[in-house]
Amino acid sequence: MNSPLTQTETGAIDARALHREATVIDGLIIAKWSRELLEDMRRGGLSAANCTVSVWEGFQATVDNIVATNALMEECSDLVLPVRTTADIRRAKQEDKTGIIFGFQNAHAFEDQIGYVEIFKKLGVGIVQLCYNTQNLVGTGCYERDGGLSGFGREIVAEMNRVGVMCDLSHVGANTSREVILESSRPVCYSHCLPSGLKEHPRNKSDEELKFIADHGGFVGVTMFTPFLRAGVNATIDDYVEAIVYVMNIVGEDAIGIGTDFTQGHDQAFFEWLTHDKGYARRLTSFGEIINPKGIRTIGEFGNLTEALLRHGLSEAQVRKIMGENWVRVLADVWGE
Amino acid sequence: MNSPLTQTETGAIDARALHREATVIDGLIIAKWSRELLEDMRRGGLSAANCTVSVWEGFQATVDNIVATNALMEECSDLVLPVRTTADIRRAKQEDKTGIIFGFQNAHAFEDQIGYVEIFKKLGVGIVQLCYNTQNLVGTGCYERDGGLSGFGREIVAEMNRVGVMCDLSHVGANTSREVILESSRPVCYSHCLPSGLKEHPRNKSDEELKFIADHGGFVGVTMFTPFLRAGVNATIDDYVEAIVYVMNIVGEDAIGIGTDFTQGHDQAFFEWLTHDKGYARRLTSFGEIINPKGIRTIGEFGNLTEALLRHGLSEAQVRKIMGENWVRVLADVWGE
Repeated sequence: MNSPLTQTETGAIDARALHREATVIDGLIIAKWSRELLEDMRRGGLSAANCTVSVWEGFQATVDNIVATNALMEECSDLVLPVRTTADIRRAKQEDKTGIIFGFQNAHAFEDQIGYVEIFKKLGVGIVQLCYNTQNLVGTGCYERDGGLSGFGREIVAEMNRVGVMCDLSHVGANTSREVILESSRPVCYSHCLPSGLKEHPRNKSDEELKFIADHGGFVGVTMFTPFLRAGVNATIDDYVEAIVYVMNIVGEDAIGIGTDFTQGHDQAFFEWLTHDKGYARRLTSFGEIINPKGIRTIGEFGNLTEALLRHGLSEAQVRKIMGENWVRVLADVWGE
Repeated sequence: MNSPLTQTETGAIDARALHREATVIDGLIIAKWSRELLEDMRRGGLSAANCTVSVWEGFQATVDNIVATNALMEECSDLVLPVRTTADIRRAKQEDKTGIIFGFQNAHAFEDQIGYVEIFKKLGVGIVQLCYNTQNLVGTGCYERDGGLSGFGREIVAEMNRVGVMCDLSHVGANTSREVILESSRPVCYSHCLPSGLKEHPRNKSDEELKFIADHGGFVGVTMFTPFLRAGVNATIDDYVEAIVYVMNIVGEDAIGIGTDFTQGHDQAFFEWLTHDKGYARRLTSFGEIINPKGIRTIGEFGNLTEALLRHGLSEAQVRKIMGENWVRVLADVWGE
């Protein structure tokens, strides 16, 4: 059933009204932080986003990133607020702001200290990807042979469970991912992935992997990074919707959300850093041209996704779940609310 | 043929004279550094030793260890001198001092920086064990499932080859060890190990592993750590010689040396630190009582080993090789002299 607020006079759903109404969560943004970026988040109607503050950085450099981001958020408190709980996400929604969840794309910043998990949780880090592309102390990423979750990794997962930090497996290798899914006592996620059923790629997840995480109470955020989409750089927002629907048909409409992987504002040097091990060592991959699907090239165009999902025949309830309600529910679960 | 200097009037070899004459190298000491310890090294007639300055420490804490050890060596310059090249070992021998080779038991101190290999080489680090018992960025240790050498690990091995730092595999897992042996362009070593042919233990090496490293130009230092010896805490120096002869029969008399693993001066807290992952996390093993074989309980008794090797029928030439000449030759090769 559609809510009265989102219906036009003819009874059809008003996509703009629905997008305004809905809780909209982006499960992964790794943009260049600036006031302009945060303004674009408001333009896109984001209620909250998982914003990357660590990839290759160690403990102290990550704290430095958090300090800098906190300063920006303070300067832009008319646009954003920090998220510690899902109540903060609801408050952001009410106040027409975007809630900022700090996230890591690599457990490297925990270094060799299990105690750093709780330190970072206190600093606002709610989601941590265990590995970024390569091996670390916890396990191995998806761009090299993967020996699985280490003994120390088991201790880190247990601590993340205890403290309430979500395990993200998007860039994690298949063996480590499977073992984390089995090891974790709380739901884990691929915060931003695409199905290899549509395009084979080391970063994409097979139907079996998608089913496995969902069968174990996990969650899948669907990304739109064009190098991993079937249509490549020519992809449009409709190709993104195709991938979302493909994943939904495997994991179900309650275990799916959005995780765009917006890299807005970054330059080529940043991508060089991302695509080399440790930020400088051997090259792991080359993306080629980085361009988002037509129709959702910028965060400000986020509303077009609600429209496109409706246009592809999804119900209002399904769209609300995908655009954010599912993320809020699973985060509340993982964060122990 | 025995040298005239080491023969008694009856033509038998004088073990004391031979020990005094010979170049004596200990391939692994992880003692508590103090003047008393360095005096005991002199008492034992050591020409040089690979002295551990890093196990679980990161970069900066390892530099701090080096600073402290340098200060002690400066204070005790009547007893020791720093080793950068095998010429320094020869000079130490001539001056009746012990040459100190800095060594790591874990590549953890390199952190994620390939460039730190050369930094530490400049600081006197000539031998680095790639993993200590568990997984790090390079590979995996011998106390957990081992997924092999990582991509970053290959880069570290190449840099160690380039800069001239010996790869030590004693506490490294079987898969990572095999791949490092194949990957390294210079000889690698087990600096301190025992054969599992005499006692099954995760730290001991099988006949196949010993043959494999020797067949690929590598080197084996034999330890005497009683928990890994067949006779356990009741072991004597003769049990140690049994293990040395066992290994020599596999790797040949040119690829074998001594690597005692003396822990002299350390207390129980130190062993607790060693036997927990990262020095504090999960327990990996328990040694029980730590007591060296009767006859070589302290470094000062090192001369008894020369005597025991002769008593077991080894020739003077074999004893000289085992006690140090082989180590000097392989170090010269790895250090690019």
